[in-house]
Amino acid sequence: MEWLNSSWMHREGLARGSEGRTHHLTEEAQGKYHYVYGPFPDPVLQVAPGDLVVVETKDAFEGKIERETDSPSEILNVPFLNPQCGPIAVEGAEKGDIIAIRIHSIKPRGPQPVGTTALIAEFGGLVGTAHTAVLNEALPEKVKKMNVTEDGVEFNSKITIPYEPFIGTLGVSPEIEAVTSLQPDYWGGNMDVPDVAPGAIVYFPVHRKDGYVYLGDCHAAQGDGELCGVAVEMASTTTIQIDVIKNRHIAWPRLENEDFIMTLGSARPMEDAARIAYRELINWLVEDYGWDKLEAYFFLTQAGRVRLGNMVDPKYTIGASIAKSYLA
Amino acid sequence: MEWLNSSWMHREGLARGSEGRTHHLTEEAQGKYHYVYGPFPDPVLQVAPGDLVVVETKDAFEGKIERETDSPSEILNVPFLNPQCGPIAVEGAEKGDIIAIRIHSIKPRGPQPVGTTALIAEFGGLVGTAHTAVLNEALPEKVKKMNVTEDGVEFNSKITIPYEPFIGTLGVSPEIEAVTSLQPDYWGGNMDVPDVAPGAIVYFPVHRKDGYVYLGDCHAAQGDGELCGVAVEMASTTTIQIDVIKNRHIAWPRLENEDFIMTLGSARPMEDAARIAYRELINWLVEDYGWDKLEAYFFLTQAGRVRLGNMVDPKYTIGASIAKSYLA
Amino acid sequence: MEWLNSSWMHREGLARGSEGRTHHLTEEAQGKYHYVYGPFPDPVLQVAPGDLVVVETKDAFEGKIERETDSPSEILNVPFLNPQCGPIAVEGAEKGDIIAIRIHSIKPRGPQPVGTTALIAEFGGLVGTAHTAVLNEALPEKVKKMNVTEDGVEFNSKITIPYEPFIGTLGVSPEIEAVTSLQPDYWGGNMDVPDVAPGAIVYFPVHRKDGYVYLGDCHAAQGDGELCGVAVEMASTTTIQIDVIKNRHIAWPRLENEDFIMTLGSARPMEDAARIAYRELINWLVEDYGWDKLEAYFFLTQAGRVRLGNMVDPKYTIGASIAKSYLA
Amino acid sequence: MEWLNSSWMHREGLARGSEGRTHHLTEEAQGKYHYVYGPFPDPVLQVAPGDLVVVETKDAFEGKIERETDSPSEILNVPFLNPQCGPIAVEGAEKGDIIAIRIHSIKPRGPQPVGTTALIAEFGGLVGTAHTAVLNEALPEKVKKMNVTEDGVEFNSKITIPYEPFIGTLGVSPEIEAVTSLQPDYWGGNMDVPDVAPGAIVYFPVHRKDGYVYLGDCHAAQGDGELCGVAVEMASTTTIQIDVIKNRHIAWPRLENEDFIMTLGSARPMEDAARIAYRELINWLVEDYGWDKLEAYFFLTQAGRVRLGNMVDPKYTIGASIAKSYLA
Repeated sequence: MEWLNSSWMHREGLARGSEGRTHHLTEEAQGKYHYVYGPFPDPVLQVAPGDLVVVETKDAFEGKIERETDSPSEILNVPFLNPQCGPIAVEGAEKGDIIAIRIHSIKPRGPQPVGTTALIAEFGGLVGTAHTAVLNEALPEKVKKMNVTEDGVEFNSKITIPYEPFIGTLGVSPEIEAVTSLQPDYWGGNMDVPDVAPGAIVYFPVHRKDGYVYLGDCHAAQGDGELCGVAVEMASTTTIQIDVIKNRHIAWPRLENEDFIMTLGSARPMEDAARIAYRELINWLVEDYGWDKLEAYFFLTQAGRVRLGNMVDPKYTIGASIAKSYLA
Repeated sequence: MEWLNSSWMHREGLARGSEGRTHHLTEEAQGKYHYVYGPFPDPVLQVAPGDLVVVETKDAFEGKIERETDSPSEILNVPFLNPQCGPIAVEGAEKGDIIAIRIHSIKPRGPQPVGTTALIAEFGGLVGTAHTAVLNEALPEKVKKMNVTEDGVEFNSKITIPYEPFIGTLGVSPEIEAVTSLQPDYWGGNMDVPDVAPGAIVYFPVHRKDGYVYLGDCHAAQGDGELCGVAVEMASTTTIQIDVIKNRHIAWPRLENEDFIMTLGSARPMEDAARIAYRELINWLVEDYGWDKLEAYFFLTQAGRVRLGNMVDPKYTIGASIAKSYLA
Repeated sequence: MEWLNSSWMHREGLARGSEGRTHHLTEEAQGKYHYVYGPFPDPVLQVAPGDLVVVETKDAFEGKIERETDSPSEILNVPFLNPQCGPIAVEGAEKGDIIAIRIHSIKPRGPQPVGTTALIAEFGGLVGTAHTAVLNEALPEKVKKMNVTEDGVEFNSKITIPYEPFIGTLGVSPEIEAVTSLQPDYWGGNMDVPDVAPGAIVYFPVHRKDGYVYLGDCHAAQGDGELCGVAVEMASTTTIQIDVIKNRHIAWPRLENEDFIMTLGSARPMEDAARIAYRELINWLVEDYGWDKLEAYFFLTQAGRVRLGNMVDPKYTIGASIAKSYLA
Repeated sequence: MEWLNSSWMHREGLARGSEGRTHHLTEEAQGKYHYVYGPFPDPVLQVAPGDLVVVETKDAFEGKIERETDSPSEILNVPFLNPQCGPIAVEGAEKGDIIAIRIHSIKPRGPQPVGTTALIAEFGGLVGTAHTAVLNEALPEKVKKMNVTEDGVEFNSKITIPYEPFIGTLGVSPEIEAVTSLQPDYWGGNMDVPDVAPGAIVYFPVHRKDGYVYLGDCHAAQGDGELCGVAVEMASTTTIQIDVIKNRHIAWPRLENEDFIMTLGSARPMEDAARIAYRELINWLVEDYGWDKLEAYFFLTQAGRVRLGNMVDPKYTIGASIAKSYLA
């Protein structure tokens, strides 16, 4: 993959693109999964810049929803949702640096049907919720199990959705907070942006020594917005490579792949997520590509692209991007 | 174009896909342009189902911003903005029907530089506005003129943006209101969705006899969100074909092209635009494609796509879509 | 009422506080009621600055919901809702002026039970709506009729709510738009702010010759936010006095009474309504009371008050106020 | 104070209104202040139901802004803002209970000028912020120091604002999260609601053993919305009494005083805060006062009151209330 040589990670990461050791973070090695992004637990693993980690993630329900007849409200135990692997300590990462994570691969893991989606009371994009509080009756609970392979997601007997896996929840620890893994924010977390996929490198601002990487919540496929709140959730074997860019401040996560650069903003209402993402993208164009700020504003007006990650989590996430073809 | 035969317009429109007469709505024929979508003016043209209309639209500034040294605040005269052609009376259209508009072509019109974008005080996605009222100083006014041909938009000496024209403002009259052409709503209007482009058919709910079609505000290119509030505005020669689907209620505009079907919602905050669009898309799947409502909710969660039209107009516009490949 | 002598209306209005003729705008004189705020109808009445008008308003349902067993969805005919009296042409008012309206009295009118509230499907503050679109089932329709006199609103056999009447919908015509009387905006309209009550003077920016005053939708009582969307609606006999302040631009409605000055902003999301109202109040302090802008910002931070008008209409309305005791 | 005998705290609290021991949580006893609401630190104090605590709170800037010439951006060290006393362990409190806190008194503490407000870049209700991200220049930094006594706040040489102190930040620990003390949420926190004042009892849902009460951020006065983001901040000596109501679930904080009962919701956008507060108030009327749900919805529509706490924090806070006179 030619483009990697010119990626930010390879140009400025401490490992300069070389691969280090490969670590295996199995379910056993992980032991207890985590439900918050925070600085308090001891790391389950320590890696050096350039190292790869093969991670066994659980699905967002910790594998507890096994049948279509299961009742999410009886099985799920708030706030113990969206279990995360980690924290992974990254040598040399300090507050004010960036941790770069290249996603190598995501494979479904476990017995079929591996994929799960569900309707959960007072959760989702087209229902009243705990925040958009209404008096209407909640929708009925409902579970759908789907066979998932790298060939596709068997949505039903007629429709197979392409297997387009990504990491729903990925990020680093805040400095002093420990926040539910259901929430996306400036440290990453539950962004649910389908571009956080194999082939992409994601950049996070580091807030504490060793950064503390968390990940989980892999999806076999997801539409824009994750409409009902639950994608095709699956346990996975996910391989990432981690590096560190020293002394470089970014306010929100960034992403690049072969085709575009993207900034990720999370907020409510949704327009604030878009504002954050686009302002960060202007900042990127100004800082690294030599653009004048207002000229960049004009340019993104004509050529920027927007990806809606989620419209269901405690903050909504939007990615704003610009094609690399313009930036040569 | 094979797909047209299976389009809603060709299947259910009164003209069944056949082309009628071609009308020319020149600047002279239009005379006075309009700044509201409403039922009060006399039609400038009457067409039969299946007829084509070749329309000379003005740009959103009515061609008054001619030089990069021009001052928008001195030239523009609120509320006389975003001049619209029409109303075009459509024979046989009545409240409770649908008007279908197929976009045949959009060509730039007039002397170069045909394209205009601008920073306008207290307007745009990354500034305080009349509604998101702040005490910060406004950004400076700024105008950029661009040569635009069907080969591309010369954004600057290094960057040419592909010519991807669309109609920024298109719709029908409300029943008793007359609303600024700056606003998108359930009747269409200033949606600024780049998919309203040649190759697409757009469907609008009819609210009064003869429907009263308005259009204007063509863009040579635009990024998602129309970030600064002003796309590559241009005068155009735009060719549309109009048809009527009788006795069919839709609440918000819909669109189809060769690849997908899309519903269009406009509201603030932005999540409400997404909610409207996605609920309408579920309704469409239920009504015309035989889906169960909750199964459709699950399905769009995994395979729906979202396009952000504008994040700058009085209401924000979002299109929710699903690939036709799933609907065979 | 001593304070009137120092009111803006008395100090700068053309009539300087003197009362002119009294006009009677009865149901018969009104004839057809209106459902939009706009410039298109002929005035039903012409008044001079200082004149009083005794107006017979209908309730927001035009008196059609007569029994608790009535079905709003069968009776109401969208968009013919919230019938308005007017337009009243005000001599001497021109674009760029202010129309001042002092509310003298509001009395219930018609046979008991005069008061009506109702649950209407997909409308209200605690339900999914046409804009906050959800898949949940709508609440059941429901009507409550209440006896209303100037002694109180008999909510039920145990509870009587004080009679605190106000004008729910009051304002002037936009310049070229004609917008549903359900919507509040910079021209006033359906603000549903309980301070628009006897004893208050409300100021509106004039957008066209003669201003064109509309009013209707009187409420016998209302909580903050008009939670279910329908206050204690009643037909009324309402007496207002109208004056003109020449050559003075305001962007949004303003209000004063004996105790405070208030600015009124309408927008979605709700924080934008608050931003508008507070920024306008700072502008007022700067323009008329000699405050420094940032000092006024500090001051309202410590002493400003907020009134939520409605959280149910197409735009939400908030009033921001400051006690006159601070402004001596 | 007669009403206390009928308060929820006195009726159902374990101490049944009797006063226990008085504890002193001085600066020395507190030692290190906290910047998150969470379960991780050891308690600084353990109290029994009915006990009083006299707490020395620091101001939101930890007393570091001493002069009007100080620069907040140089002095403040994000995220170490809004220092909190606590956690106070409450014997007998367990998940699923309620902690009731009666506020006895709040007195200014320390050398004059005790009061501080400030403009902080990209923070406040009428400026672009980190979330409502804009390209406009930030306002200048600015500090105002004010003498504060129990006789009033000397805002400037002409204006004294009444001393109406309250606790800006008060609440309990989440179960597994540790969240910045800048944020209000279902556990309380930085709600900035002026009704959290002497004479009020506030009720919080307990999420972990011993509850873990935190408090700080007392204000000598504040307008609705805390417009610029910084009230009249002061160090204080605050006396509270703590009790426990067993086995009673509430989702969000509640408050009562002599005159009304209030529910407190925090969310963005602001309408969601209002929705939460009003739905909780309906729940309260249904659970404790025997109302039918829809009748309560009607009733609050006509008689509910709304208080805007803050429009500047990570979530906005709104209190919805109903007069006790209706509930006899």
